[in-house]
Amino acid sequence: MTNHSNHSHSSHPHHHGGGGGSSSAGSLSTTETLSLLALSAACVAVLLNTFQDDGAPLSASIALSGIAFAASYAMIRWLGPTFLRADIKGVDMSKLHRREIPECMGAICAVVYLLVIMVFIPFPFYKDIVAATSGGGNRDVVLHVEHVQQGRFLHRFPHSKLASYLSAIIALQSIALLGIGDDLFDIRWRHKFFIPAFAAIPLLVIYFVDFGVTSIVIPIPLQPYLGELFDLGGLYYLYMTAIAIFSPNSINILAGINGIEVSQSIVIALLLVLNDCLYLFTPYPHPATDSHLFSLYFLLPFLGVSCALLAHNWYPARVFVGDTYCYFAGMVFVVVSVLGHFSKTLILLLLPQIFNFLYSAPQIFGLVPCPRHRLPKFNARTGLLEPSVTPWTPERQPRPPVRWALLLLHRLRLVRVTLDRETGLFAESTNLTILNLWLVWRGPLREDRLATEITAVQLLVGLFGLFVRHRLALLVFKEDNWGVAGGSPPP
Amino acid sequence: MTNHSNHSHSSHPHHHGGGGGSSSAGSLSTTETLSLLALSAACVAVLLNTFQDDGAPLSASIALSGIAFAASYAMIRWLGPTFLRADIKGVDMSKLHRREIPECMGAICAVVYLLVIMVFIPFPFYKDIVAATSGGGNRDVVLHVEHVQQGRFLHRFPHSKLASYLSAIIALQSIALLGIGDDLFDIRWRHKFFIPAFAAIPLLVIYFVDFGVTSIVIPIPLQPYLGELFDLGGLYYLYMTAIAIFSPNSINILAGINGIEVSQSIVIALLLVLNDCLYLFTPYPHPATDSHLFSLYFLLPFLGVSCALLAHNWYPARVFVGDTYCYFAGMVFVVVSVLGHFSKTLILLLLPQIFNFLYSAPQIFGLVPCPRHRLPKFNARTGLLEPSVTPWTPERQPRPPVRWALLLLHRLRLVRVTLDRETGLFAESTNLTILNLWLVWRGPLREDRLATEITAVQLLVGLFGLFVRHRLALLVFKEDNWGVAGGSPPP
Repeated sequence: MTNHSNHSHSSHPHHHGGGGGSSSAGSLSTTETLSLLALSAACVAVLLNTFQDDGAPLSASIALSGIAFAASYAMIRWLGPTFLRADIKGVDMSKLHRREIPECMGAICAVVYLLVIMVFIPFPFYKDIVAATSGGGNRDVVLHVEHVQQGRFLHRFPHSKLASYLSAIIALQSIALLGIGDDLFDIRWRHKFFIPAFAAIPLLVIYFVDFGVTSIVIPIPLQPYLGELFDLGGLYYLYMTAIAIFSPNSINILAGINGIEVSQSIVIALLLVLNDCLYLFTPYPHPATDSHLFSLYFLLPFLGVSCALLAHNWYPARVFVGDTYCYFAGMVFVVVSVLGHFSKTLILLLLPQIFNFLYSAPQIFGLVPCPRHRLPKFNARTGLLEPSVTPWTPERQPRPPVRWALLLLHRLRLVRVTLDRETGLFAESTNLTILNLWLVWRGPLREDRLATEITAVQLLVGLFGLFVRHRLALLVFKEDNWGVAGGSPPP
Repeated sequence: MTNHSNHSHSSHPHHHGGGGGSSSAGSLSTTETLSLLALSAACVAVLLNTFQDDGAPLSASIALSGIAFAASYAMIRWLGPTFLRADIKGVDMSKLHRREIPECMGAICAVVYLLVIMVFIPFPFYKDIVAATSGGGNRDVVLHVEHVQQGRFLHRFPHSKLASYLSAIIALQSIALLGIGDDLFDIRWRHKFFIPAFAAIPLLVIYFVDFGVTSIVIPIPLQPYLGELFDLGGLYYLYMTAIAIFSPNSINILAGINGIEVSQSIVIALLLVLNDCLYLFTPYPHPATDSHLFSLYFLLPFLGVSCALLAHNWYPARVFVGDTYCYFAGMVFVVVSVLGHFSKTLILLLLPQIFNFLYSAPQIFGLVPCPRHRLPKFNARTGLLEPSVTPWTPERQPRPPVRWALLLLHRLRLVRVTLDRETGLFAESTNLTILNLWLVWRGPLREDRLATEITAVQLLVGLFGLFVRHRLALLVFKEDNWGVAGGSPPP
């Protein structure tokens, strides 16, 4: 909803190919070319080495992530002029010189990411020993498939997990398709809110067909009443749908300044990687190892493409990421946490997004008027951002409960209300987004400073969340992460 | 390559929202609404009935295909104005009044199709009997999974086939994504020729990981030398890649007049359905039943969305289908035939496309100059189509071997060459596409008449191909369709 607010959309009539570009528009500098080539060469070397090592999918994943970074970095630069020519562009409204820059570059990241994730499939899943079938009906005859998973750090998956890996790819491809549609057609936010629900369909259908586990572990204090496990049944699918809708949208509404969509996604991904490492580098093999390897395989390439995008999208932005990126990032978090059975942890990491959503709710649901643009106001004189405001006319004043609530929030310094001196009527109130709130607290800030501070908040809240998760969970659950005790080979 | 030639592309500067539309632009007539609602209601009734019948995936597939038709038909109408507004539009050059109409509507069909295919997953694959797991590590414990496939017409698949179904979805989603990119950015044909290769990656990777069968059956006369089976190894992947590149591109280059892309695809799909039925309705259960059911499940919804598209794209077209549709259609044929192991049959059905490709080759590879537009020439006076020509200037004349070949083809009536009366130099020659060739043979034709006749040729050639396939194959193979003898439950 606020994502489109920092630029006019591609479908508006702009003159063609205008706005100039930076001097390097469309091509890489020599330094960039050499660095990317060196990185790619190193990654290819690591990748080739994993073949000799008979496996080591984690090394392969890291190497492919480096390649994903290099490929995205170069392609975002190369394809910028193409996007401009195809009228997929926007205007940065928080700059003195408003230039047209390419929009929807997250689509490039999504395509590179998907390609890398597909190329990666053989590394964890390859059946070493397939019976030399006759080409007839015996192609399912596999000898010694249980022997494939040997040793902890070989990290080959039981073959049965292939379906869940594929379902994750399908969900991510779906969100990329729908996100591109959203970017092209500028769908109204009331409709686009449900776009991720469609992308969640493959995830839910395959979960239903392939796993069907809908039980949750009950905290110890409640076990006498509900038993050790409680089968949520259909409610579990509703719960997964809710997460699948919330996560992509929550990234999408914490937007509006250069770099914030990508930097928050990178922080969340890093925290999820940290969480995964807590399970992988334990003194004893943790039963949830597989789930967290699965998570790493999806998160590492995501970090690769996101860092490449951030390099171009950070202040001053030379490209916009588009809704595609926000949805895609949110869906990456959904697939790893839902298929890895740690969706509760994801919720802890999304606390700033949840706060932003709740804080925005009065405007989203129409209690407070919602202007088309809610991004912070750019003060052309100082070059700094200030909180943007909703004006209240004497004819349109808040209803008494809203008025009362806004004044209370004003006292708590959670919003800034300006009253008309003479009449005492509401003149204006700051827009209800976390970015404006931060500006209410920390005064005018430059765009990159605001993005850095919000990203730091995201990191600190997330670290605290993980601390709570791993230290305090043991107080209410008998064992940590019981529900994901996977890894047992198929019977 | 010729697909874009019947309209200027969306990225060209058109005035906005212009060109008017038909009176019903963007909304359905009452008759249409009632018919679509009746169809949908009937299909939903059938679908609900299959739940009671404990299965019958084939009925469910037919019902979902009906719903896919209704949904595509309505959405193509509804979203037309949205596409126009987003500048995704083209101009029909073979009409007296050149109006702007929406382009790339095949993307709508692709999205509806993919959604339907995903919703369908539970019908053939649902594990009836899943152990009531504790939510712990036992989620792979399945009781009596072999009992799921009981009786021939219940048609539940062994669960192990889920991965191949998912890989087909991933390949189709990939081609949709890449096709939309092509439609948006108007990629040069030398580059776009390889787009399907990228979409084939998931198919090949999952084939490698999950099946890995690379043997082919040797015809009886050659068996003394090569043995009964011959393992192609890596060559088999090259062969699959070649088919995956050829099929989508071959649909894409037989294009240029209203309806031809969709009508040829519908004919090929119908012939594949007929081929499948030859295996399903045999007096004894055929070992390849599963492969051909798999094929039907993908082809029936494709026929649904294609018929809806044809209704809008047939002469006089109110929408264009875009490269997305052509690639998507070609990829549907690839996934069903590669995963069903009947890719040789597909080649028989693509004979007109193969002819068109070979016939076009001199222009594609630059032996004969290739103008940007090769579609038949619209004669505004008669309202009929005539063969379009490549002009030869006195400065640029064909080289001797090309000259000789063109004159030979002219004698064989496979091209029409016009020589300059006085100098004897080449003045012009007809463009090398099957559409122009047909016009050389059958004189000026109206656009719909040409499309109908080419579609009829496609149908007759395909029927002949299937006849050859099923009557004559037994002469050189011991058993029909040996290679796909699937259906044996996993060990």
